[in-house]
Amino acid sequence: MKCTILNIGDELLIGQTLNTNAQFISQKMNEIGIDVIHHISLSDEADDIIKCLEAALETSTIVLITGGLGPTSDDITKEVLCTYFNGKLVYNEEAYKNIERIFLGRNFIIDESTKRVAYLPDVCAIIQNKNGTAAGMIFTKDNKTIISMPGVPYEMKAMVTDSVIPYLSNKYELPYIFHRSILTAGVGETVLAEKLVYFEKKKDTRIKLAYLPSVGKVRLRLTIKGENKHELESVIENAKQEVINAVSEHIYGFDDDTLEATIGTLLLDKNMQLGTAESCTGGYLAHIITSVSGSSAYFKGSIISYANEIKMELLGVQESTLNEFGAVSEQTVSEMISGALQKLNVDVAIAISGVAGPSGGSEEKPVGTVFIGVGTKDRNYIKRLKFTNNRTRNIELSTTVALVLLRKFLLNQVG
Amino acid sequence: MKCTILNIGDELLIGQTLNTNAQFISQKMNEIGIDVIHHISLSDEADDIIKCLEAALETSTIVLITGGLGPTSDDITKEVLCTYFNGKLVYNEEAYKNIERIFLGRNFIIDESTKRVAYLPDVCAIIQNKNGTAAGMIFTKDNKTIISMPGVPYEMKAMVTDSVIPYLSNKYELPYIFHRSILTAGVGETVLAEKLVYFEKKKDTRIKLAYLPSVGKVRLRLTIKGENKHELESVIENAKQEVINAVSEHIYGFDDDTLEATIGTLLLDKNMQLGTAESCTGGYLAHIITSVSGSSAYFKGSIISYANEIKMELLGVQESTLNEFGAVSEQTVSEMISGALQKLNVDVAIAISGVAGPSGGSEEKPVGTVFIGVGTKDRNYIKRLKFTNNRTRNIELSTTVALVLLRKFLLNQVG
Repeated sequence: MKCTILNIGDELLIGQTLNTNAQFISQKMNEIGIDVIHHISLSDEADDIIKCLEAALETSTIVLITGGLGPTSDDITKEVLCTYFNGKLVYNEEAYKNIERIFLGRNFIIDESTKRVAYLPDVCAIIQNKNGTAAGMIFTKDNKTIISMPGVPYEMKAMVTDSVIPYLSNKYELPYIFHRSILTAGVGETVLAEKLVYFEKKKDTRIKLAYLPSVGKVRLRLTIKGENKHELESVIENAKQEVINAVSEHIYGFDDDTLEATIGTLLLDKNMQLGTAESCTGGYLAHIITSVSGSSAYFKGSIISYANEIKMELLGVQESTLNEFGAVSEQTVSEMISGALQKLNVDVAIAISGVAGPSGGSEEKPVGTVFIGVGTKDRNYIKRLKFTNNRTRNIELSTTVALVLLRKFLLNQVG
Repeated sequence: MKCTILNIGDELLIGQTLNTNAQFISQKMNEIGIDVIHHISLSDEADDIIKCLEAALETSTIVLITGGLGPTSDDITKEVLCTYFNGKLVYNEEAYKNIERIFLGRNFIIDESTKRVAYLPDVCAIIQNKNGTAAGMIFTKDNKTIISMPGVPYEMKAMVTDSVIPYLSNKYELPYIFHRSILTAGVGETVLAEKLVYFEKKKDTRIKLAYLPSVGKVRLRLTIKGENKHELESVIENAKQEVINAVSEHIYGFDDDTLEATIGTLLLDKNMQLGTAESCTGGYLAHIITSVSGSSAYFKGSIISYANEIKMELLGVQESTLNEFGAVSEQTVSEMISGALQKLNVDVAIAISGVAGPSGGSEEKPVGTVFIGVGTKDRNYIKRLKFTNNRTRNIELSTTVALVLLRKFLLNQVG
């Protein structure tokens, strides 16, 4: 069952608005086994809307449209679809009552242009809009379904969840679809691909494996689709186990886990308190750790020692260490760990010092050189890394690697 | 001059990845007067790539493609384009050296699948990739241009800025287009729109004014397009001055300025050193301040006192203050400012304490309640705010407001 998403609106094409609607609808269609084959963003122009709709109907059974349903003169989607399906606009009492409900709640006045929103095509089923004034419209052509929804994300989302999914699930016989994601960090796609050569060769041919990289991490996503629910679940679970076996040392979680949240769970399990001492990451590591709701249960705080004076005064780094080895060195990071453990009174500390760039590099320690260390009072592990020439990316990569090292350290895999 | 953007990748169509690439490219094309007429997301399938490319070439002079250039087997864009343009893949020494540079820096090993990335079509111009291994490719057909770039956003962005824009600007006669952005913070769109009613009425009809909101900020962007360079520049400069006059008290900068960089300039001018004490923002404020290259000249560091123990031990907040008024209070924030000034030995300090949520709120201090203060040893200014129920948004809004307050404080507009 194929689906095309048409997102109508000039704001998308000039880059003013990020198209989150296409992503949301895709996720929802994917969950019920409908294949989204195209997202198309187009402007509020009648000819182009029809051209894109006709092209979509050539390849897809389902066409989901957002945008162009507002009260202003540039919103023409309803009129275009009404004409295309040979209908006429008629007054819809329920839609008008809905507009009244929305407007009275907001103390607005219903003017002529708003009243026009209550005139709807007589050749479609109507989806009333709980969260706004513009109704959704379901047109059918042969066995195909064309649904037009507002572009305002939370209005569209409620319609998809409450009306579109039940309608499509009822009308079409949809396959089962299952996904399993295995989340890795600290290695690139290529290394993973090498370890998965054997798996790729012998896997069930219905299983698809996708590599989805982000900064310092790769999501390995398995997908299977078909008719026999139990058999599919068993096949994908087996495949997941085989992927786990092949790349186990790089896995930090599954599906919707985040690296920072899995570390939180680990710290809670071990009943350990964490603190950080950051230089080049400037607080980004603490930010990522505290982005997890409930992180106060295991994270006490951080000393951001951007200036060497702070490294000495607050973390107890020796002036001689800074003079002899420099702020970006294993020795300094080792003393930062000790200082953080003591000053923040925590069980385990992470320390980072590096050259984020774009300036500040030397021949011996070029931009992108970062020392990252993890330690308790008994042991520590410090690694020298060389990232990129990009400041933002170096900060992000340092943070991801720091969390990966902390995880391995807590699991006694390093240090 | 019309342009279609093709974004290739199954991860877009199943909704796993948000298509930020289309937005970025649209913004950049818009800035140089190229009209983006379609964004099309499609999967890594040869037939469909060709079908979409041919459809795009029917309507557009420029087709910009992202994605499908990685080393794994599902990445086929390069092979498909090479075949379509009747070329063959040949070894490219420069591309290989680039891969070596990227990989050696990271201690990875170059395997066979990675080496294949250095084989490029002999029927296109090559854009070397500063930030990754996959090169960009410029194909031409009649007077049309087809450019293929990697899907990794920061690799693509560098190519667009450094290579694609200069190439297109040089090849085609583009209209003159001028933009002027006036950057505001701390007020919403509606307030700004009210102040700009008169400007909107009497402005030159060729001038377009867009309101571009982001967390805590609104960018007011003026645009004019046409043939007479000097006249256009004069008209837009006048319009800019009128907007400045209308909303002057909310402006922190222009065009590519960032709030954090303008504050850096202000601190340097005043020869003042900054430090922060953060609770609910968990390091995000320090991160934003240090995202500015060169911030070490005015930012010394931060104490992230997530636990009350750290507020007492490292910032000298009195236990009695925490007991009587709570960690989220004007009194605590006042003591955090004093502590930061002293412990970080800085001239001016920011302190933040609040309930980021989603839990931890009370009737008196619901989720989203945040106290933000700025102070020197002589004076301080502390404000109580109520943001949203969303943790991420509260952290971002707190940070923006903190920077806005610091700016006003340094300019003696508050405190």
